[in-house]
Amino acid sequence: MSQIVYKLTIRLTLAVTAAFLISLDGFSQSKAKSDELTQQAIFPKGEQGPANNFTGKSFSTRLVDSDSTYNTLIGNVLFEPGARSNWHKHPGGQILIITAGVGYHQQKGKPIEIMRKGDVVKCPPNVEHWHGASPDSSLHQMYIIPNTQKGIVEWLLPVTDKEYNALK
Amino acid sequence: MSQIVYKLTIRLTLAVTAAFLISLDGFSQSKAKSDELTQQAIFPKGEQGPANNFTGKSFSTRLVDSDSTYNTLIGNVLFEPGARSNWHKHPGGQILIITAGVGYHQQKGKPIEIMRKGDVVKCPPNVEHWHGASPDSSLHQMYIIPNTQKGIVEWLLPVTDKEYNALK
Repeated sequence: MSQIVYKLTIRLTLAVTAAFLISLDGFSQSKAKSDELTQQAIFPKGEQGPANNFTGKSFSTRLVDSDSTYNTLIGNVLFEPGARSNWHKHPGGQILIITAGVGYHQQKGKPIEIMRKGDVVKCPPNVEHWHGASPDSSLHQMYIIPNTQKGIVEWLLPVTDKEYNALK
Repeated sequence: MSQIVYKLTIRLTLAVTAAFLISLDGFSQSKAKSDELTQQAIFPKGEQGPANNFTGKSFSTRLVDSDSTYNTLIGNVLFEPGARSNWHKHPGGQILIITAGVGYHQQKGKPIEIMRKGDVVKCPPNVEHWHGASPDSSLHQMYIIPNTQKGIVEWLLPVTDKEYNALK
Protein backbone atom coordinates (compact mmCIF):
# COMPACT_ATOMS: atom_id res chain seq x y z
CA MET A 1 0.00 0.00 0.00
CA SER A 2 2.77 2.40 1.00
CA GLN A 3 4.52 1.64 -2.32
CA ILE A 4 1.42 2.74 -4.22
CA VAL A 5 1.26 5.96 -2.19
CA TYR A 6 4.93 6.75 -2.90
CA LYS A 7 4.58 5.88 -6.59
CA LEU A 8 1.62 8.24 -6.76
CA THR A 9 3.64 10.88 -4.90
CA ILE A 10 6.46 10.60 -7.42
CA ARG A 11 4.05 10.77 -10.36
CA LEU A 12 2.36 13.78 -8.78
CA THR A 13 5.73 15.48 -8.23
CA LEU A 14 6.67 14.87 -11.86
CA ALA A 15 3.30 16.12 -13.11
CA VAL A 16 3.50 19.31 -11.03
CA THR A 17 7.10 19.83 -12.17
CA ALA A 18 6.11 19.34 -15.81
CA ALA A 19 3.23 21.81 -15.44
CA PHE A 20 5.63 24.29 -13.80
CA LEU A 21 8.17 23.84 -16.61
CA ILE A 22 5.50 24.38 -19.25
CA SER A 23 4.25 27.56 -17.53
CA LEU A 24 7.87 28.74 -17.14
CA ASP A 25 8.47 28.19 -20.84
CA GLY A 26 5.30 30.14 -21.69
CA PHE A 27 6.38 32.98 -19.40
CA SER A 28 9.87 32.96 -20.92
CA GLN A 29 8.46 33.16 -24.48
CA SER A 30 6.06 35.94 -23.50
CA LYS A 31 8.87 37.90 -21.81
CA ALA A 32 11.18 37.39 -24.80
CA LYS A 33 8.46 38.73 -27.14
CA SER A 34 7.95 41.77 -24.92
CA ASP A 35 11.73 42.37 -24.71
CA GLU A 36 11.97 42.04 -28.49
CA LEU A 37 9.38 44.79 -29.08
CA THR A 38 10.99 47.05 -26.47
CA GLN A 39 14.43 46.62 -28.03
CA GLN A 40 13.18 47.24 -31.56
CA ALA A 41 11.67 50.60 -30.57
CA ILE A 42 14.62 52.94 -31.14
CA PHE A 43 12.65 56.15 -30.61
CA PRO A 44 9.86 57.26 -28.23
CA LYS A 45 6.38 56.16 -29.34
CA GLY A 46 5.30 59.79 -30.00
CA GLU A 47 1.91 61.34 -30.65
CA GLN A 48 -1.02 59.70 -32.41
CA GLY A 49 -1.34 60.73 -36.09
CA PRO A 50 -4.36 62.91 -36.97
CA ALA A 51 -7.48 61.02 -38.17
CA ASN A 52 -7.74 63.20 -41.28
CA ASN A 53 -4.37 61.92 -42.60
CA PHE A 54 -4.28 58.37 -41.18
CA THR A 55 -6.55 55.31 -40.98
CA GLY A 56 -6.19 53.23 -37.80
CA LYS A 57 -3.70 53.90 -35.02
CA SER A 58 -0.30 55.36 -35.85
CA PHE A 59 2.16 57.25 -33.64
CA SER A 60 4.69 59.78 -34.91
CA THR A 61 7.92 61.25 -33.49
CA ARG A 62 9.73 64.13 -35.21
CA LEU A 63 13.49 63.58 -35.30
CA VAL A 64 14.70 66.51 -37.45
CA ASP A 65 12.69 69.64 -38.25
CA SER A 66 13.05 71.13 -41.69
CA ASP A 67 15.30 74.19 -41.96
CA SER A 68 17.22 76.04 -44.67
CA THR A 69 20.57 74.46 -43.61
CA TYR A 70 19.79 70.74 -44.01
CA ASN A 71 16.61 71.00 -46.19
CA THR A 72 15.59 67.69 -44.68
CA LEU A 73 12.71 66.56 -42.46
CA ILE A 74 13.05 63.25 -40.58
CA GLY A 75 10.62 61.39 -38.36
CA ASN A 76 9.64 57.97 -37.09
CA VAL A 77 6.18 56.40 -37.33
CA LEU A 78 4.87 53.34 -35.50
CA PHE A 79 1.89 51.93 -37.41
CA GLU A 80 -0.25 49.40 -35.54
CA PRO A 81 -1.52 46.42 -37.62
CA GLY A 82 -3.95 47.64 -40.33
CA ALA A 83 -2.98 51.32 -39.87
CA ARG A 84 -1.85 53.38 -42.88
CA SER A 85 -1.34 56.91 -44.12
CA ASN A 86 -3.65 58.61 -46.61
CA TRP A 87 -2.48 58.90 -50.18
CA HIS A 88 0.01 61.81 -50.33
CA LYS A 89 2.92 63.22 -52.31
CA HIS A 90 6.13 65.15 -51.65
CA PRO A 91 7.59 67.82 -54.00
CA GLY A 92 11.14 66.68 -53.08
CA GLY A 93 10.44 62.92 -52.82
CA GLN A 94 10.59 60.64 -49.78
CA ILE A 95 12.82 57.82 -48.47
CA LEU A 96 11.47 55.20 -46.04
CA ILE A 97 13.71 53.08 -43.79
CA ILE A 98 12.11 50.12 -42.02
CA THR A 99 13.58 49.34 -38.58
CA ALA A 100 11.11 46.64 -37.42
CA GLY A 101 7.90 44.84 -38.38
CA VAL A 102 6.17 44.31 -41.73
CA GLY A 103 4.43 46.98 -43.80
CA TYR A 104 2.88 47.93 -47.14
CA HIS A 105 3.86 50.66 -49.58
CA GLN A 106 2.15 51.57 -52.84
CA GLN A 107 2.72 54.11 -55.59
CA LYS A 108 -0.35 55.15 -57.61
CA GLY A 109 -0.98 52.71 -60.48
CA LYS A 110 1.49 50.10 -59.19
CA PRO A 111 0.94 47.01 -57.00
CA ILE A 112 1.43 47.08 -53.22
CA GLU A 113 5.00 46.32 -52.12
CA ILE A 114 5.81 44.57 -48.84
CA MET A 115 8.42 46.28 -46.62
CA ARG A 116 10.41 44.51 -43.90
CA LYS A 117 13.10 45.36 -41.32
CA GLY A 118 16.17 46.77 -43.08
CA ASP A 119 14.32 47.71 -46.31
CA VAL A 120 14.86 51.14 -47.89
CA VAL A 121 12.10 52.43 -50.18
CA LYS A 122 12.26 55.56 -52.34
CA CYS A 123 9.22 57.41 -53.68
CA PRO A 124 9.99 60.00 -56.38
CA PRO A 125 8.91 63.66 -56.21
CA ASN A 126 5.20 64.34 -56.86
CA VAL A 127 4.27 60.64 -57.11
CA GLU A 128 1.11 59.78 -55.15
CA HIS A 129 1.76 57.01 -52.61
CA TRP A 130 0.82 55.63 -49.21
CA HIS A 131 2.51 53.44 -46.58
CA GLY A 132 1.52 51.63 -43.42
CA ALA A 133 1.53 48.39 -41.46
CA SER A 134 0.46 45.03 -42.84
CA PRO A 135 -2.82 43.63 -41.47
CA ASP A 136 -1.10 41.25 -39.02
CA SER A 137 2.06 43.13 -37.92
CA SER A 138 2.97 46.59 -36.71
CA LEU A 139 5.59 48.63 -38.60
CA HIS A 140 8.42 50.81 -37.25
CA GLN A 141 9.31 53.18 -40.08
CA MET A 142 11.60 56.19 -40.39
CA TYR A 143 10.79 58.70 -43.11
CA ILE A 144 13.22 61.15 -44.68
CA ILE A 145 11.89 64.02 -46.77
CA PRO A 146 14.76 65.69 -48.67
CA ASN A 147 14.72 68.91 -50.71
CA THR A 148 12.23 70.57 -48.33
CA GLN A 149 13.03 73.91 -49.96
CA LYS A 150 10.60 72.61 -52.64
CA GLY A 151 7.85 71.87 -50.06
CA ILE A 152 7.06 69.03 -47.68
CA VAL A 153 3.80 67.13 -48.26
CA GLU A 154 0.39 67.34 -49.92
CA TRP A 155 -2.21 65.12 -48.22
CA LEU A 156 -4.84 63.41 -50.40
CA LEU A 157 -7.68 60.88 -49.92
CA PRO A 158 -7.71 57.99 -47.39
CA VAL A 159 -6.65 54.53 -48.59
CA THR A 160 -9.90 52.57 -48.81
CA ASP A 161 -10.27 49.05 -47.36
CA LYS A 162 -10.54 47.77 -50.96
CA GLU A 163 -7.23 49.41 -51.90
CA TYR A 164 -5.57 48.22 -48.68
CA ASN A 165 -6.81 44.63 -49.06
CA ALA A 166 -5.89 44.37 -52.77
CA LEU A 167 -2.84 42.22 -51.94
CA LYS A 168 -4.91 39.43 -50.32
CA MET B 1 13.44 0.55 4.18
CA SER B 2 11.27 0.99 1.09
CA GLN B 3 10.08 4.34 2.53
CA ILE B 4 13.66 5.57 2.70
CA VAL B 5 14.28 4.50 -0.91
CA TYR B 6 11.18 6.34 -2.12
CA LYS B 7 12.01 9.47 -0.08
CA LEU B 8 15.49 9.42 -1.60
CA THR B 9 13.95 8.96 -5.06
CA ILE B 10 11.71 12.00 -4.56
CA ARG B 11 14.63 14.09 -3.30
CA LEU B 12 16.76 12.98 -6.25
CA THR B 13 13.93 13.86 -8.64
CA LEU B 14 13.66 17.33 -7.11
CA ALA B 15 17.44 17.88 -7.20
CA VAL B 16 17.68 16.85 -10.87
CA THR B 17 14.71 19.09 -11.68
CA ALA B 18 16.31 22.04 -9.88
CA ALA B 19 19.59 21.53 -11.72
CA PHE B 20 17.65 21.33 -15.00
CA LEU B 21 15.78 24.54 -14.16
CA ILE B 22 19.02 26.37 -13.35
CA SER B 23 20.63 25.24 -16.61
CA LEU B 24 17.45 26.21 -18.51
CA ASP B 25 17.62 29.70 -17.00
CA GLY B 26 21.29 30.06 -17.97
CA PHE B 27 20.57 28.92 -21.52
CA SER B 28 17.62 31.33 -21.73
CA GLN B 29 19.76 34.29 -20.61
CA SER B 30 22.55 33.42 -23.04
CA LYS B 31 20.05 33.06 -25.90
CA ALA B 32 18.38 36.36 -24.99
CA LYS B 33 21.74 38.20 -25.17
CA SER B 34 22.50 36.68 -28.56
CA ASP B 35 18.98 37.53 -29.80
CA GLU B 36 19.41 41.12 -28.55
CA LEU B 37 22.53 41.74 -30.66
CA THR B 38 20.96 40.10 -33.71
CA GLN B 39 17.81 42.18 -33.38
CA GLN B 40 19.68 45.47 -32.98
CA ALA B 41 21.47 44.99 -36.31
CA ILE B 42 18.90 46.38 -38.74
CA PHE B 43 21.16 46.30 -41.80
CA PRO B 44 23.82 43.91 -43.13
CA LYS B 45 27.23 44.39 -41.52
CA GLY B 46 28.77 45.64 -44.79
CA GLU B 47 32.36 46.20 -45.87
CA GLN B 48 35.26 47.25 -43.66
CA GLY B 49 36.00 50.99 -43.85
CA PRO B 50 39.33 51.96 -45.50
CA ALA B 51 42.28 52.41 -43.12
CA ASN B 52 43.08 55.84 -44.56
CA ASN B 53 39.72 57.24 -43.35
CA PHE B 54 39.09 55.17 -40.20
CA THR B 55 40.99 54.09 -37.06
CA GLY B 56 40.11 50.61 -35.75
CA LYS B 57 37.48 48.31 -37.21
CA SER B 58 34.35 49.80 -38.76
CA PHE B 59 31.93 48.30 -41.30
CA SER B 60 29.83 50.35 -43.70
CA THR B 61 26.68 49.62 -45.74
CA ARG B 62 25.37 52.07 -48.35
CA LEU B 63 21.58 52.46 -48.11
CA VAL B 64 20.89 55.27 -50.61
CA ASP B 65 23.30 56.46 -53.30
CA SER B 66 23.42 60.16 -54.06
CA ASP B 67 21.57 61.30 -57.19
CA SER B 68 20.10 64.51 -58.58
CA THR B 69 16.53 63.54 -57.56
CA TYR B 70 16.93 63.09 -53.79
CA ASN B 71 20.29 64.92 -53.31
CA THR B 72 20.81 62.65 -50.29
CA LEU B 73 23.32 59.94 -49.41
CA ILE B 74 22.45 57.48 -46.63
CA GLY B 75 24.45 54.66 -45.06
CA ASN B 76 24.92 52.64 -41.93
CA VAL B 77 28.19 52.16 -40.04
CA LEU B 78 29.00 49.62 -37.34
CA PHE B 79 31.96 50.87 -35.29
CA GLU B 80 33.61 48.30 -33.03
CA PRO B 81 34.74 49.57 -29.58
CA GLY B 82 37.49 52.19 -29.97
CA ALA B 83 36.94 52.60 -33.74
CA ARG B 84 36.31 56.06 -35.20
CA SER B 85 36.31 58.05 -38.43
CA ASN B 86 39.00 60.56 -39.35
CA TRP B 87 38.20 64.21 -38.97
CA HIS B 88 36.08 65.24 -41.98
CA LYS B 89 33.52 67.77 -43.20
CA HIS B 90 30.49 67.87 -45.50
CA PRO B 91 29.56 70.86 -47.73
CA GLY B 92 25.84 70.13 -47.13
CA GLY B 93 26.11 69.04 -43.46
CA GLN B 94 25.42 65.63 -41.90
CA ILE B 95 22.79 64.04 -39.65
CA LEU B 96 23.62 60.98 -37.49
CA ILE B 97 20.95 58.64 -36.12
CA ILE B 98 22.05 56.12 -33.47
CA THR B 99 20.20 52.79 -33.57
CA ALA B 100 22.22 50.83 -30.96
CA GLY B 101 25.28 51.05 -28.71
CA VAL B 102 27.24 54.00 -27.35
CA GLY B 103 29.46 56.37 -29.34
CA TYR B 104 31.39 59.63 -29.43
CA HIS B 105 30.95 62.67 -31.65
CA GLN B 106 33.03 65.84 -31.69
CA GLN B 107 33.01 69.10 -33.62
CA LYS B 108 36.36 70.92 -33.92
CA GLY B 109 36.96 73.15 -30.88
CA LYS B 110 34.11 71.64 -28.84
CA PRO B 111 34.12 68.82 -26.25
CA ILE B 112 33.29 65.21 -27.16
CA GLU B 113 29.57 64.39 -26.98
CA ILE B 114 28.29 60.92 -26.05
CA MET B 115 25.69 59.41 -28.42
CA ARG B 116 23.26 56.61 -27.45
CA LYS B 117 20.47 54.58 -29.07
CA GLY B 118 17.75 56.95 -30.34
CA ASP B 119 19.98 60.05 -30.41
CA VAL B 120 19.96 62.34 -33.45
CA VAL B 121 23.05 64.52 -33.98
CA LYS B 122 23.44 67.28 -36.57
CA CYS B 123 26.77 68.60 -37.81
CA PRO B 124 26.55 71.85 -39.84
CA PRO B 125 28.01 72.31 -43.33
CA ASN B 126 31.80 72.68 -43.52
CA VAL B 127 32.33 72.06 -39.79
CA GLU B 128 35.19 69.62 -39.08
CA HIS B 129 34.01 66.67 -36.99
CA TRP B 130 34.48 62.97 -36.28
CA HIS B 131 32.33 60.16 -34.86
CA GLY B 132 32.83 56.61 -33.68
CA ALA B 133 32.27 54.05 -30.95
CA SER B 134 33.07 54.60 -27.28
CA PRO B 135 36.05 52.61 -25.92
CA ASP B 136 33.84 49.94 -24.30
CA SER B 137 30.84 49.62 -26.64
CA SER B 138 30.22 49.23 -30.34
CA LEU B 139 28.03 51.77 -32.17
CA HIS B 140 25.34 51.20 -34.82
CA GLN B 141 24.98 54.52 -36.61
CA MET B 142 23.08 55.70 -39.68
CA TYR B 143 24.41 58.76 -41.47
CA ILE B 144 22.42 61.05 -43.73
CA ILE B 145 24.24 63.53 -45.96
CA PRO B 146 21.77 66.05 -47.44
CA ASN B 147 22.34 68.66 -50.14
CA THR B 148 24.77 66.42 -52.03
CA GLN B 149 24.51 68.78 -55.01
CA LYS B 150 27.00 70.83 -52.94
CA GLY B 151 29.40 67.88 -52.54
CA ILE B 152 29.66 64.89 -50.20
CA VAL B 153 32.72 64.71 -47.94
CA GLU B 154 36.26 65.99 -47.50
CA TRP B 155 38.44 63.61 -45.45
CA LEU B 156 41.05 65.07 -43.08
CA LEU B 157 43.55 63.78 -40.47
CA PRO B 158 43.02 60.75 -38.20
CA VAL B 159 41.71 61.33 -34.67
CA THR B 160 44.73 60.77 -32.41
CA ASP B 161 44.54 58.61 -29.28
CA LYS B 162 45.01 61.82 -27.25
CA GLU B 163 41.99 63.43 -28.94
CA TYR B 164 39.92 60.24 -28.61
CA ASN B 165 40.78 59.76 -24.93
CA ALA B 166 40.19 63.40 -23.97
CA LEU B 167 36.87 62.50 -22.31
CA LYS B 168 38.43 60.10 -19.79
